[in-house]
Amino acid sequence: MIQALINKIAQIIPIYPEDEATIRQLFHEKHIKKFDHFLQEGQINRHAAFIVHGLLRYYINADGLEKTYSFGFEHCFTCNYESFIPQIPSTKNIQALEDTVILTISYHDLQQFYKLLKHGERFGRMVIEQVFIESLQEITSLYVDTAEQRYLKFMELYPDMQQRIPQYYIASYVGVQPQSLSRIRKRILG
Amino acid sequence: MIQALINKIAQIIPIYPEDEATIRQLFHEKHIKKFDHFLQEGQINRHAAFIVHGLLRYYINADGLEKTYSFGFEHCFTCNYESFIPQIPSTKNIQALEDTVILTISYHDLQQFYKLLKHGERFGRMVIEQVFIESLQEITSLYVDTAEQRYLKFMELYPDMQQRIPQYYIASYVGVQPQSLSRIRKRILG
Repeated sequence: MIQALINKIAQIIPIYPEDEATIRQLFHEKHIKKFDHFLQEGQINRHAAFIVHGLLRYYINADGLEKTYSFGFEHCFTCNYESFIPQIPSTKNIQALEDTVILTISYHDLQQFYKLLKHGERFGRMVIEQVFIESLQEITSLYVDTAEQRYLKFMELYPDMQQRIPQYYIASYVGVQPQSLSRIRKRILG
Repeated sequence: MIQALINKIAQIIPIYPEDEATIRQLFHEKHIKKFDHFLQEGQINRHAAFIVHGLLRYYINADGLEKTYSFGFEHCFTCNYESFIPQIPSTKNIQALEDTVILTISYHDLQQFYKLLKHGERFGRMVIEQVFIESLQEITSLYVDTAEQRYLKFMELYPDMQQRIPQYYIASYVGVQPQSLSRIRKRILG
């Protein structure tokens, strides 16, 4: 299970045997049941995590409406950096849409990870650079893109997820009612 | 001039004499005249920079209107990470509002900086963590905050800049016409 995480890290930095031991020590397995939350608005996001298998949905509450702005799946990292980095209460929610298994690391242990791994700091920088770009694009898209553009983006970012994500949440991501989603789909595909 | 930059970096990581030599070698002085651009939409942001003195304005063009979303001033770093990190054309603009002096570093040399400084990678991670949080807050605010909230945010973030930034650009940051700005100001202060 931890091997998938080590492989993922090894795609970004070289990993040495003593690094592997450190990784095994700092990450802990956690199970999240379908529809339970990894993080809820108001909580401080105290752990970052690697998704071993399962599916997560990221959403904000806007005027009583849930707006889905991202999904996370196998072999991605998950965390709300806005809450995690400064250790302040989250304005976002992260919910499991399937029974999900993750490997978590606490804020404190992640600082250890950065220090103890030979290229830990570089890993931290490169992951956050990537997440930074994606987050800015996602948040901007939420406000400026049309429903058609959002649906095209969904298909581009999550090409294999159409069957796994309930229509209701795809509609929430696109920003329309579920009944409007099939019209958009027909317009684009038809 | 470079000493201000070294002091800034030393606030984040320990700096060794050989690090200082590397910094002096990798950064280059550049002058930007008032109203000239450091970066324009469509260009690739090939250099990050440290502002020695002067004032910069960040804006996007939205339907022909310039929307100011941030300012940069003495002893801040400047860069559009969305363009700089993946080295793709920028959708944002960075313009000098005063004659400005910066110390620039190319994308390639910044990778050298990360490698050669003893704690270069940590510096990179910590700066980008900070910029990430600020950028998410700024972009979100642009879309969700009212004009009053934007003006309060301006006063909080740029307490000493009211005299230096032309009213026209403060209004652009707040998202109103200049004549509306004095009404908002009266309502808040009055």
